[in-house]
Amino acid sequence: MQLGLIGLGRMGSNMRDRLRAAGHEVVGYDRNPQVSDVTSLTDLVQQLQAPRVVWIMVPHGAPTRQVLEELGDSLEADDLVLEGGNSRFTDDRSNAAMLAERGIKYVDVGVSGGVWGAENGYGLMAGGDTEDIERAMPIFDALRPPGDRDKGFAHAGPVGAGHYAKMVHNGIEYGLMQAYAEGFELLAASEVVTDVPATIKAWSQGTVVRSWLLDLLVRALEEDPELERLRGYVSDSGEGRWTIEESINNAVPTPAITSALFARFASRQEDSPAMKAVAALRNQFGGHSVQSSDE
Amino acid sequence: MQLGLIGLGRMGSNMRDRLRAAGHEVVGYDRNPQVSDVTSLTDLVQQLQAPRVVWIMVPHGAPTRQVLEELGDSLEADDLVLEGGNSRFTDDRSNAAMLAERGIKYVDVGVSGGVWGAENGYGLMAGGDTEDIERAMPIFDALRPPGDRDKGFAHAGPVGAGHYAKMVHNGIEYGLMQAYAEGFELLAASEVVTDVPATIKAWSQGTVVRSWLLDLLVRALEEDPELERLRGYVSDSGEGRWTIEESINNAVPTPAITSALFARFASRQEDSPAMKAVAALRNQFGGHSVQSSDE
Amino acid sequence: MQLGLIGLGRMGSNMRDRLRAAGHEVVGYDRNPQVSDVTSLTDLVQQLQAPRVVWIMVPHGAPTRQVLEELGDSLEADDLVLEGGNSRFTDDRSNAAMLAERGIKYVDVGVSGGVWGAENGYGLMAGGDTEDIERAMPIFDALRPPGDRDKGFAHAGPVGAGHYAKMVHNGIEYGLMQAYAEGFELLAASEVVTDVPATIKAWSQGTVVRSWLLDLLVRALEEDPELERLRGYVSDSGEGRWTIEESINNAVPTPAITSALFARFASRQEDSPAMKAVAALRNQFGGHSVQSSDE
Amino acid sequence: MQLGLIGLGRMGSNMRDRLRAAGHEVVGYDRNPQVSDVTSLTDLVQQLQAPRVVWIMVPHGAPTRQVLEELGDSLEADDLVLEGGNSRFTDDRSNAAMLAERGIKYVDVGVSGGVWGAENGYGLMAGGDTEDIERAMPIFDALRPPGDRDKGFAHAGPVGAGHYAKMVHNGIEYGLMQAYAEGFELLAASEVVTDVPATIKAWSQGTVVRSWLLDLLVRALEEDPELERLRGYVSDSGEGRWTIEESINNAVPTPAITSALFARFASRQEDSPAMKAVAALRNQFGGHSVQSSDE
Repeated sequence: MQLGLIGLGRMGSNMRDRLRAAGHEVVGYDRNPQVSDVTSLTDLVQQLQAPRVVWIMVPHGAPTRQVLEELGDSLEADDLVLEGGNSRFTDDRSNAAMLAERGIKYVDVGVSGGVWGAENGYGLMAGGDTEDIERAMPIFDALRPPGDRDKGFAHAGPVGAGHYAKMVHNGIEYGLMQAYAEGFELLAASEVVTDVPATIKAWSQGTVVRSWLLDLLVRALEEDPELERLRGYVSDSGEGRWTIEESINNAVPTPAITSALFARFASRQEDSPAMKAVAALRNQFGGHSVQSSDE
Repeated sequence: MQLGLIGLGRMGSNMRDRLRAAGHEVVGYDRNPQVSDVTSLTDLVQQLQAPRVVWIMVPHGAPTRQVLEELGDSLEADDLVLEGGNSRFTDDRSNAAMLAERGIKYVDVGVSGGVWGAENGYGLMAGGDTEDIERAMPIFDALRPPGDRDKGFAHAGPVGAGHYAKMVHNGIEYGLMQAYAEGFELLAASEVVTDVPATIKAWSQGTVVRSWLLDLLVRALEEDPELERLRGYVSDSGEGRWTIEESINNAVPTPAITSALFARFASRQEDSPAMKAVAALRNQFGGHSVQSSDE
Repeated sequence: MQLGLIGLGRMGSNMRDRLRAAGHEVVGYDRNPQVSDVTSLTDLVQQLQAPRVVWIMVPHGAPTRQVLEELGDSLEADDLVLEGGNSRFTDDRSNAAMLAERGIKYVDVGVSGGVWGAENGYGLMAGGDTEDIERAMPIFDALRPPGDRDKGFAHAGPVGAGHYAKMVHNGIEYGLMQAYAEGFELLAASEVVTDVPATIKAWSQGTVVRSWLLDLLVRALEEDPELERLRGYVSDSGEGRWTIEESINNAVPTPAITSALFARFASRQEDSPAMKAVAALRNQFGGHSVQSSDE
Repeated sequence: MQLGLIGLGRMGSNMRDRLRAAGHEVVGYDRNPQVSDVTSLTDLVQQLQAPRVVWIMVPHGAPTRQVLEELGDSLEADDLVLEGGNSRFTDDRSNAAMLAERGIKYVDVGVSGGVWGAENGYGLMAGGDTEDIERAMPIFDALRPPGDRDKGFAHAGPVGAGHYAKMVHNGIEYGLMQAYAEGFELLAASEVVTDVPATIKAWSQGTVVRSWLLDLLVRALEEDPELERLRGYVSDSGEGRWTIEESINNAVPTPAITSALFARFASRQEDSPAMKAVAALRNQFGGHSVQSSDE
């Protein structure tokens, strides 16, 4: 089928390739004319036959909102917008409401898979009305991994549910990565196990901890067995924070995921003000030696 | 090759089946005569040709120690003992030393895979001398998953390293399970996602969080979509505790794995004495309403 | 000086008593006519001489907002509103802006001390302009503990800073209570210390952990040495959640305070969905025994 | 009464001063002849009248054990040893057993108060037989803060209970310090509160979080308002680790205290191997930018 695709960064251009390989007609737009198939959003809308289906794949927040506002002006009733970026689920409700005023349909899609999705297919979670999701199903089927549809795609619920599911997915991802990372650090520190990369590789099959993330850790250790070429500096990209905020809103204890987020925060600090305060307290009550900031 | 196998519980008997299917001659012993191939440990030793290879698969602690002491009396120099139970790595060193006095060799093996290992093969981590491990390699090859040896087997280091690797593996397992569990609870509590089992199943392929544990969670939710047939009561079996103790010994922060262990502790409490103390404090300073133990 | 005081619940009526005892003229208003000095908010405003000073002490959120809107209509330019409830600091900015349109001044005040403040004085943290805070200083001086002003009162910063300081104060309070509670539970569980209440009482003087909260724990244990008359069920009242949300917004790791909040969440659950998921996983991979919900 | 005091470091010499000021006769021994009252342990024993009371105040572990062995050889039946160092409670049992063979009595004493104890008195927790503790009571009364005995001294239980109580005390102390430190960091990071030292000082009286540790934080901030002269590098001294190990042994969840310990571990790392692993994983799956170790 025909699809307009807005945003041709790494994710978007990979998705365009995968969709075209599946036989779909993709008209892509990006601000960067070197990768864009059309000259403008208006141009993109004109090249699509009504009722149109348009997938948005731009950074969440202001960029996504701006695209949606422009689409709200140029699309027509019964056109369908698929919002595939990493938006917060709360944005979806206002987005859908804005478009609904003009009769435009809206589905939010959580997309997982990173750069590997181009080859393996993407895990997809969609939120919206059933008829809208059915309309886009050929697109979802081309993007998801081949095989059983329900192993790579879900209609998670009403508008917002797709991004909500993706948010929780990423929260879990934080926790999983932290668990592997703690185990790696313990193996490396204790030195009882003398071949850490081989040991972790031996977990690839048959074990309880086997996973795709483990396979990636094996790859990373094959390239750099002690990870000495990297700094332990880790960014976070929104979904982890939102997961904790949602867990607080719903009174759900999420200590493992939260500890993963806090470890990332700490990884980006030159020095810890909290630990300065602890050092100061110990110095006050016990005359414990402290390190001055010159040391 | 020929192997003596001591301990024919669920794990041991599955392993006997898998080894025999691979063409090995297994003489099994268990205290339960209904499953045992021989009448006693002495009988088992006599039926094996020297130099013997004997695999121990009995509960860790006293039972394993007792078997080792009996074997120390009945085995001969150059016989090889493979300790495959969930022993603490510190036990391996004393075990090996005791047997070494009689010239008996010792290798510890961490075994992962649970009841599924019978079919899929087990992930194996071995600790000991290279020549001893080489001698047992046909056994390891039969037990591990087919395919590349290094994806299901590692010589992790000297004696103790096999069980150390298994301990850390299980610590990671605690953290992974906790991360999935927190995500499941948040999805269920927030009710934005209306089809939780389908959403989690959609993570099976293509996503960053796909794993064997996720596949098991999908299975569990297919059988009981809201997990209403289970209580949230979770035991722990040693390796998680040892992982935290080792992380403390090595000054390694392991907050995610630790939070998983603490969540299990809390799951087994009828009521929390700590939370009683917090309730008592709030009652003292603020006149906050508390619930009496009658409510 | 003259003060209008809106909200005569436990905190408000205690404060009225303390202010009157210090010689101030307090006109109190409450929806409950039995405790109110006046019949309406309008009546209260009329009984005060301009420029008026009015202290609001009603529940945060909608009740506070409603009072502010009524005061916005009936107060005059140069009147001063002191918002002493447990409002979120973000509310203060919109409150102040709304009143500023009419020339009415606004100061937010965090108040700590609970029911003991009536006797001991309250710790106060104020946010707003210096001249406004100066105007209200006689009130602050009467409410705070006697002695050095700076040990019970601070001008924390601009509008919002008072409630922000109180929010962080309460976050710390969560962490402190959790630390004492964990220590209490360990003492009680381990049974090495045979007289737990006496041991905790011995920390009252001379030790590093002595504090007012410890004194309250001693009192609670004197009344109920094993805290057997209470359930371990603990509510939370907003500030703890906001503290974590702010720590996330500012990328500040706050694991101790967060663990205290999560322990409260868990204390209110009949059963833990997350632990059900862990039990289900263990059941899937290991045939570990689980407890059904009937047990 | 007469007391032999072994170990005249900062704590020991302060205690000698405090005991002498209370009228007791103290014969002190230290390896450093400049502070010692006698030339040897043997000399110390000879100068004391039987039945003797000897207080040991040397570093825990090997130094304490060595002193105990020497005392075991030179003391007589019915002499009493008070072990006041930071020993692990498990050591007390073997210490007491060793001395009991010679009829020598043993009491372990946890001592809190740091350098301030010299002036304020020390909080004391004792473990042992009632008659032994009664014999030493004049010493305890001189060391503890003046006033009610039960606010600065407890007979916590049998041998080991004194050090157990001190261990838990220190575990709580870790949690309290972490809670204040997190709150300090959040106040400093968010910049809503513009006068952080004044705000924290305002918590000194009347508030729920007032405590001796808070007073010390106020002092530290008066000396260095942004704590810029310190590094956030914090040692740990045994009791915190033992507290977590005991909480694991007793299946007691202690997340706040544990998070405090882990924060100290992290404070001493140049870089975090775990965070390197997370960065490596993100790099593998998402092409997320990482920082090389050169940056």
